[in-house]
Amino acid sequence: MKLQVAMDVLTTEDALALAGKVAPHVDIIELGTPLIKAEGLRAITAIKKAHPDKIVFADLKTMDAGELEADIAFSAGADLVTVLGTAGDSTIVGAVTAATKHGKGIVVDLIGVADKVTRAREVIALGAEFVEMHAGLDEQAEEGFTFQTLLDDGETAAVSFSVAGGVNVSTIAAVQRAGATVAVAGGAIYGADDPAAAAAELRAAIV
Amino acid sequence: MKLQVAMDVLTTEDALALAGKVAPHVDIIELGTPLIKAEGLRAITAIKKAHPDKIVFADLKTMDAGELEADIAFSAGADLVTVLGTAGDSTIVGAVTAATKHGKGIVVDLIGVADKVTRAREVIALGAEFVEMHAGLDEQAEEGFTFQTLLDDGETAAVSFSVAGGVNVSTIAAVQRAGATVAVAGGAIYGADDPAAAAAELRAAIV
Repeated sequence: MKLQVAMDVLTTEDALALAGKVAPHVDIIELGTPLIKAEGLRAITAIKKAHPDKIVFADLKTMDAGELEADIAFSAGADLVTVLGTAGDSTIVGAVTAATKHGKGIVVDLIGVADKVTRAREVIALGAEFVEMHAGLDEQAEEGFTFQTLLDDGETAAVSFSVAGGVNVSTIAAVQRAGATVAVAGGAIYGADDPAAAAAELRAAIV
Repeated sequence: MKLQVAMDVLTTEDALALAGKVAPHVDIIELGTPLIKAEGLRAITAIKKAHPDKIVFADLKTMDAGELEADIAFSAGADLVTVLGTAGDSTIVGAVTAATKHGKGIVVDLIGVADKVTRAREVIALGAEFVEMHAGLDEQAEEGFTFQTLLDDGETAAVSFSVAGGVNVSTIAAVQRAGATVAVAGGAIYGADDPAAAAAELRAAIV
């Protein structure tokens, strides 16, 4: 199982500083959606240039113009780009077309999708590399949210999936047991007093 | 009925050039999602600075972290910011909180929402300024797309709405008859040989 750090910071400078600390312990470096909207594609380019050996994940959360948005992100240096599961199939197909052209991959973020299992299978059939079983920052704060549902959905869908939203040192073993391809940690790393130590601890918890 | 130009260009330079041509003929200047992802918040600031008397619309298409994303866009100069109708209620409420703080407004983009009428009423109740009856660029290219459905949904919902995706000189009268608050024209303006003349012609078609 790979470890992905989600960088929910707002400036390229903060992203570079965080990535510099945690890169040795992670496989995938994610630029969060607010960071990309705040800084633009130059943030992607800066992170890829600083960490050419890492998989750079641009969380574009594309809802429309799938081919165009994915194309400009891949051209800027992204290796993986997200499209929303609530987007139409033609948007996902467009993004996959761009990924194929660049020899890169599309990840479908299932945030907000009611039936994540069915949609997961549909988008893999459309050419997505993997799906993200994801509870958003807002969703995690809602009453009734359970992390276990994400794991159960991933296991049931039986396609390649990552898990995001609630991954920390006490849950990461369960994520691996559920069969996830990637565990995504955000606040558990960037919210820690020592992000490098937090990332190293998560890495050590993967068996 | 107000006229909004959707600038689906990819650089701040092109956006400033287009806005400079069409501003005299429109009420609302929209920065498209790919433009914001490409250039970041600085694109919003540049347009607001060049056109302080116009309503600047940032098509963020927020799916998560509603308060944060809206807050940074309003701080950068946006007057209206979009959240996706497929986002959870807590994301919409968060964005409305940011809008209230700044004395600005949230628009909910109903792209990808199956039952647009019901969702329109729900998000207006949550505090959205108006909803966007919207067929995306990808959706418009799909078989079976009909512009009339957008107008019918707006009329049936009986809340304040804009229409986007297929507005041009031959359809804008129907948009007004359906009771729209705002007509959004994208390709009909930026794809024209003479964008200023195209915007003027659309304006003249509003009675």
